[in-house]
Amino acid sequence: MRPSSSPSDAPAGGAGNGLFDGILARGAVASAADDRAWLQAMLDVEAALAATLADLGKVPAQHAATIASACRADRFDMAALSAAAAASANPVVPLVRALRAAAGRPAADSVHAGATSQDIMDSAAMLVAYRALGPLLADLDGAARAAAALAAVHRDTPLAGRTLLQQAVPVTLGLKAAGWLTALDRSVDLLAELRDRRLAVQLGGAAGTLAGFGDDGPAVLAGLAGRLGLAEPVLPWHTDRTRIGELAGTLGVAAGAVAKAARDVTLLAQTEVAEVAEGTPGGSSAMPHKRNPVAAVSALACAAQAPGLVATLLAAMPQEHERGAGGWQAEWRPLRELLVTVGSAAAWLRDCLAHLRVDARAMRANLDRTGGLLLAERVSAALVPALGRAGAAEVVAEASQVAASTGRPVRQVLAAQPQVAAVLSDTDLDRLLDPTTYLGSAPRLVDRALAAHRSRLAAR
Amino acid sequence: MRPSSSPSDAPAGGAGNGLFDGILARGAVASAADDRAWLQAMLDVEAALAATLADLGKVPAQHAATIASACRADRFDMAALSAAAAASANPVVPLVRALRAAAGRPAADSVHAGATSQDIMDSAAMLVAYRALGPLLADLDGAARAAAALAAVHRDTPLAGRTLLQQAVPVTLGLKAAGWLTALDRSVDLLAELRDRRLAVQLGGAAGTLAGFGDDGPAVLAGLAGRLGLAEPVLPWHTDRTRIGELAGTLGVAAGAVAKAARDVTLLAQTEVAEVAEGTPGGSSAMPHKRNPVAAVSALACAAQAPGLVATLLAAMPQEHERGAGGWQAEWRPLRELLVTVGSAAAWLRDCLAHLRVDARAMRANLDRTGGLLLAERVSAALVPALGRAGAAEVVAEASQVAASTGRPVRQVLAAQPQVAAVLSDTDLDRLLDPTTYLGSAPRLVDRALAAHRSRLAAR
Amino acid sequence: MRPSSSPSDAPAGGAGNGLFDGILARGAVASAADDRAWLQAMLDVEAALAATLADLGKVPAQHAATIASACRADRFDMAALSAAAAASANPVVPLVRALRAAAGRPAADSVHAGATSQDIMDSAAMLVAYRALGPLLADLDGAARAAAALAAVHRDTPLAGRTLLQQAVPVTLGLKAAGWLTALDRSVDLLAELRDRRLAVQLGGAAGTLAGFGDDGPAVLAGLAGRLGLAEPVLPWHTDRTRIGELAGTLGVAAGAVAKAARDVTLLAQTEVAEVAEGTPGGSSAMPHKRNPVAAVSALACAAQAPGLVATLLAAMPQEHERGAGGWQAEWRPLRELLVTVGSAAAWLRDCLAHLRVDARAMRANLDRTGGLLLAERVSAALVPALGRAGAAEVVAEASQVAASTGRPVRQVLAAQPQVAAVLSDTDLDRLLDPTTYLGSAPRLVDRALAAHRSRLAAR
Amino acid sequence: MRPSSSPSDAPAGGAGNGLFDGILARGAVASAADDRAWLQAMLDVEAALAATLADLGKVPAQHAATIASACRADRFDMAALSAAAAASANPVVPLVRALRAAAGRPAADSVHAGATSQDIMDSAAMLVAYRALGPLLADLDGAARAAAALAAVHRDTPLAGRTLLQQAVPVTLGLKAAGWLTALDRSVDLLAELRDRRLAVQLGGAAGTLAGFGDDGPAVLAGLAGRLGLAEPVLPWHTDRTRIGELAGTLGVAAGAVAKAARDVTLLAQTEVAEVAEGTPGGSSAMPHKRNPVAAVSALACAAQAPGLVATLLAAMPQEHERGAGGWQAEWRPLRELLVTVGSAAAWLRDCLAHLRVDARAMRANLDRTGGLLLAERVSAALVPALGRAGAAEVVAEASQVAASTGRPVRQVLAAQPQVAAVLSDTDLDRLLDPTTYLGSAPRLVDRALAAHRSRLAAR
Repeated sequence: MRPSSSPSDAPAGGAGNGLFDGILARGAVASAADDRAWLQAMLDVEAALAATLADLGKVPAQHAATIASACRADRFDMAALSAAAAASANPVVPLVRALRAAAGRPAADSVHAGATSQDIMDSAAMLVAYRALGPLLADLDGAARAAAALAAVHRDTPLAGRTLLQQAVPVTLGLKAAGWLTALDRSVDLLAELRDRRLAVQLGGAAGTLAGFGDDGPAVLAGLAGRLGLAEPVLPWHTDRTRIGELAGTLGVAAGAVAKAARDVTLLAQTEVAEVAEGTPGGSSAMPHKRNPVAAVSALACAAQAPGLVATLLAAMPQEHERGAGGWQAEWRPLRELLVTVGSAAAWLRDCLAHLRVDARAMRANLDRTGGLLLAERVSAALVPALGRAGAAEVVAEASQVAASTGRPVRQVLAAQPQVAAVLSDTDLDRLLDPTTYLGSAPRLVDRALAAHRSRLAAR
Repeated sequence: MRPSSSPSDAPAGGAGNGLFDGILARGAVASAADDRAWLQAMLDVEAALAATLADLGKVPAQHAATIASACRADRFDMAALSAAAAASANPVVPLVRALRAAAGRPAADSVHAGATSQDIMDSAAMLVAYRALGPLLADLDGAARAAAALAAVHRDTPLAGRTLLQQAVPVTLGLKAAGWLTALDRSVDLLAELRDRRLAVQLGGAAGTLAGFGDDGPAVLAGLAGRLGLAEPVLPWHTDRTRIGELAGTLGVAAGAVAKAARDVTLLAQTEVAEVAEGTPGGSSAMPHKRNPVAAVSALACAAQAPGLVATLLAAMPQEHERGAGGWQAEWRPLRELLVTVGSAAAWLRDCLAHLRVDARAMRANLDRTGGLLLAERVSAALVPALGRAGAAEVVAEASQVAASTGRPVRQVLAAQPQVAAVLSDTDLDRLLDPTTYLGSAPRLVDRALAAHRSRLAAR
Repeated sequence: MRPSSSPSDAPAGGAGNGLFDGILARGAVASAADDRAWLQAMLDVEAALAATLADLGKVPAQHAATIASACRADRFDMAALSAAAAASANPVVPLVRALRAAAGRPAADSVHAGATSQDIMDSAAMLVAYRALGPLLADLDGAARAAAALAAVHRDTPLAGRTLLQQAVPVTLGLKAAGWLTALDRSVDLLAELRDRRLAVQLGGAAGTLAGFGDDGPAVLAGLAGRLGLAEPVLPWHTDRTRIGELAGTLGVAAGAVAKAARDVTLLAQTEVAEVAEGTPGGSSAMPHKRNPVAAVSALACAAQAPGLVATLLAAMPQEHERGAGGWQAEWRPLRELLVTVGSAAAWLRDCLAHLRVDARAMRANLDRTGGLLLAERVSAALVPALGRAGAAEVVAEASQVAASTGRPVRQVLAAQPQVAAVLSDTDLDRLLDPTTYLGSAPRLVDRALAAHRSRLAAR
Repeated sequence: MRPSSSPSDAPAGGAGNGLFDGILARGAVASAADDRAWLQAMLDVEAALAATLADLGKVPAQHAATIASACRADRFDMAALSAAAAASANPVVPLVRALRAAAGRPAADSVHAGATSQDIMDSAAMLVAYRALGPLLADLDGAARAAAALAAVHRDTPLAGRTLLQQAVPVTLGLKAAGWLTALDRSVDLLAELRDRRLAVQLGGAAGTLAGFGDDGPAVLAGLAGRLGLAEPVLPWHTDRTRIGELAGTLGVAAGAVAKAARDVTLLAQTEVAEVAEGTPGGSSAMPHKRNPVAAVSALACAAQAPGLVATLLAAMPQEHERGAGGWQAEWRPLRELLVTVGSAAAWLRDCLAHLRVDARAMRANLDRTGGLLLAERVSAALVPALGRAGAAEVVAEASQVAASTGRPVRQVLAAQPQVAAVLSDTDLDRLLDPTTYLGSAPRLVDRALAAHRSRLAAR
């Protein structure tokens, strides 16, 4: 088992106990979005509705209290609700029946008053999302902090920059980690903003007119939002699914940010590169020597499931008239899966980055492997004044090709070129081909990213 | 609860008990693809591997027998396996450990011999798919038979054909149902073919060379395929994911075929159209009068989740070298979800079509609602000899517009047109504007579809 | 052709002339994102880079001026660039070659100095997005204003609210339009915010260190951003694709908002519903009478293409190291297609809503079609004090079923029920079954939406 | 430019000239699916329809001849058709008008007789797909043959097998290439089968009843299929989109097969691995030394666009009633894009594999890099008889860890282990740690794949 004291490693309940959940539903999001969490959220909405109606004098306060005490998920039979839900294509109909039975007369008459099934489901979905975003943001933020620590420590540690998987010019590990950081921070900011401002209560009654509340519709809407700690929407949003779409798209972006860093780790950890290793690499059922970067691999596996789920949720947006005939019901599972898979990806990445082992010697050895080829751009630039930009590029490209095909060091090939020798001395070449002095603004860019990271924290 | 004696209504175990599963995981596929089913399939593969090795004299037969008797899913702790799976990013590593413990020395040494984790997972995935396709095909086929029955009974029942949701020309309900039938039959054929020929055993050992079996690799591969009842592949397919992609794409097509029929039902059942109703329409938590077409709506909700899952599985295909670093692990959940959601969609549609109530009078009333406007094409064709095709279309379009905007019957408007009156008598117009005599080849096309349906059944 | 004086109807250039472009690439976005626009954007970036370097004294001002004058897209051979781009898998390499030739020595040496291909492509992509979002936002906003006008005019116009495509309770057309408005406004706000704050210049040099600019990297970055009118990023973002992901997700949400309104229009325009019609409905090649809602249909067709494109862009986010080996190059076409298809959808919807014909009489006739069934919820609520909530619902459900199956008016069935008659007089029933007095807070909700719409406009 | 004599390198027309098309629309598919190709296909359908009607004596033969001679795409104004298509949301309406004008009276009356727009568009789409699949299959097949050649030549060339991007056990390059081959062959077979049996003509008239043809509907359908060389469907399939879905899914699988091989090439070509290089690697705009695997990168970029397009086409399947209100029209662009992007991916991969340079010495050097660590499985198996499977794995895992962390050769660490030394002599260890003798059945598996490949060719 992976050693860690991070909150994301707390035992997950519910959905987290499935066969694949150790890998695909890591962290605390799974239990915050499992069946029990949904059911409790639905009950929380019913309880808050009754309480709001009591606040407004529309139902007796005693009813609301009775209902509230009945609204405990463990008192309901999940399998029976699930089976009964089939008759109406939504689980609220049997839940209301069961809740009325649990509350007993006369409080039963104050259950679900004025509401429609979708009011309860949508408000519950928002509560579930709100609650799931807590651990999800904690893990994303934890990953960001781990990236920030790597950026700070390795601000100046050189390694080969690689484009199209070929060595390009030197960079620093700090710059690479700063890139991860910036993307993760952005995802955190977007999701936190969404959580605080766009997760709104749903209440419209049968078709969005709040007709069941007489003249008090807007007051009930505002009161319910306040009681649930969700935003108050301008309108009931039964078939305005922009909230769901925004949440989906933003979770998709977060998945991409996580996967980018995880992909880099898997590539840096390759046997032939070996510049990083995970803190607790994984074993194999067949190969005793394997040291697999399982946290990064699992983060990739989780994140890879996001884009399809996002597409499903976006495609479900055009829902008919006042309640969708299929599109709405199609949201429930993908929304939950998306929260869980992105949460899991974040938990894995946090673990991966927090315990990442960096081998700066291997980085340097890989930088030297091509004998300076990846400084070609720099030599070329030094030749521009004499040869023109195109001419310089041509001369260096030719030398690079000779070096690559013959195995001779590029320094030697260049020194043998009369056009080069006329301009650059041996000392010049040595200086130009030193990777540690061609890091450009990498360290300063790291500082910018860290400053931006800190100013976000300060602003909270 | 929905009355039905179809096998798909048997109580579902495992995945089928979740809060949304009554709606989103209907039928028997859910339990055929739930965690327990996966675990049992993995154990079945381990047992079959040991037995195959015993067949070939590579391990003692007694070991194989001991292992077989240990391979019962209910003897393993799912939550513990799930948690331990995190350490190696796959659940086979802890399962093999637990199975060895369960088998005890010396049989433990014959557990998982020569295999790699992916051999077990992939073969288990194929077994799960094979087993899940049983009820899935039964429900798809049940839906097809229900469509065939509707096509036969309503071969000649006229209703308005509608294009772009506007009445176009008359069709028959039989022709509409024949279209559903043809698409469902095709999905059944494709999936049955895939099941029988493309679901292949996986066995390659650590990197696909079968090196752990010495010279007997191909013999073990063939033996294992035979024991599991799966196809024998030409090669181990650890990173040739065409099978998964084909299965995904074909399930996606089946989802589309189901959703097409379900969409038509929701449209025909609209309050303002009212040409069909479900056998047991669903209620509402707020509106006592509602008669919702819940089976069709639920079928749509399930089917809508397929395209995104297909995209996820296709996007995961380009897996690295001899085992994917993320792509492989990303398949498990979407593959299961896809089987379940398409199975659920099929179960709902079967139920929907098997109990569909058809109101032929409403169909006729809707045909007459526009006073013959939807025979405009026919009148136009009758005028072509005299007015040319463009001229005829123009005259009829103008008459249609006058009829639509003034509310006058189009027959009267046409009769008042001198260009029309010169060619068509009142009797001609009456005949041309009778929708029941402009059904073209609809009945014969129904016969073709039913004949094709029957010849498939005969060929099985 | 559709009559309109809106800016989106101006003749589109480039991509807008393809066979399907009249339908699928409507409006001005197509020409703002076509090949020529991309090429010009790439040249604009090269020119701005040279100018920025001149501002900083790093290249002669005369070079920058020469380069600027060479940077006109119509001076380059698109087909030759396209063909040559294959050799390096990006079109910047041949463009730089051609631009150097066009600028001539010595200015050629100041072309593309310090930059890498991706700097040019990404900055150009941001410019293209910025420029395309102009007409896209104009059309989205035009659609929103048209929805606002409908909401204001029809604030109190009753029609049947429909859930799961069944009549539910009355709503007003104003409320329906207010729902469209709110979603469209949100899309406008999100996209405008993205355009102004997240479309950032790209400049990093070969691997993101700005090494080619010596110590001046950050200054060049800031200068280039200022010259191009794009945001300055904290870091080069060659493989931080959150910007692309956010843009994709937000365009996907906008597509959903457009499609929701368009779907409602196609449903309201059905022959059997006939509550709205488009200003210029479309004809058919076969049926002279057809009055197809072609604008709404086309908006749906365009919007339906968005979710898949969003998934493609999100799935491309995890790009390797300092430049993606496939993922980056995979963005170009989907990003363009997404801008064009969402822009086209918005242009169609604007046209659709701006000319929508509303038939309030048909709405009222449809409301009356079920003889008051859709007031069942209201009658039920009135019976709660006497019968309890469950009892009331049961009585009304039974009466509804009798009414539906026998064709007797529900009012008559209810009046004949002793339990009902004991509580509600004939006058009570008449009042309760009048749809025009059961609109709840619909008009006030419309006012809220319009107020929010206006306050947004004021805040700009 | 890339040297090649393959047919896929012929200059592409139409769509192939766009800015990105050299990269994203390589090969001949682009011109087979461009606007001109679509237009010509539509005209081919109109001509064939008239000819079929003449065959059956339903229109004068002279009309058909006149129409045929008018059906040349270059005689029509694409931009005008595109613009006019907006009025009816399909391009057939203006095309029929223009074709009638071109044919002149009286032949004009025989244009489009009995058909509906969708008959023409769908049949044309099938023709376009048929024609585009020609070069697409040629390129896929060319890639397969190149893979077969690599498999044959390198049947026994050892290199490190890699799982989760870590060295695992030795494989041969032949086995790796055989895996590519098998997936490509499968894609070819699936697409060829689809092309020959599922691309069917569309003809149904206004709503699929063939009413416009009187009693001759089925005869016209059969005749048109024969004339166009497409399959004859059982029914018109205006809203049975299984054909489109199957084509989409299968193209998605082909994209995955291509991308798998391309991904391996990019990984093998990494600077630190350097086991393969492309025949003509690509340059950079900044770095003169770069030797980018541009063909593989471009293949990945093209293939990555497929899954989202597949999802779009699958999601569009549930089309309303007798013609979709948005779903049908949403297919045109993604279907074309999917053909083009998969064709382009195949063309790139063919080029990549046909000219791939293999460095067997680098492969051997990488195998030796870990000093035998990747033979750990083999040593472990040799210890099982003495230590049991679990014990053996533990001993070897420990030795592997010591070797990896200290840098000592694993052979030396193992030899120093008393438990190992008791069982295995130095000679045993030397033999066990020789990678070239632990290739298992790799060569025989290559033979199986090549035999399967040849038997397919023979069967054609």
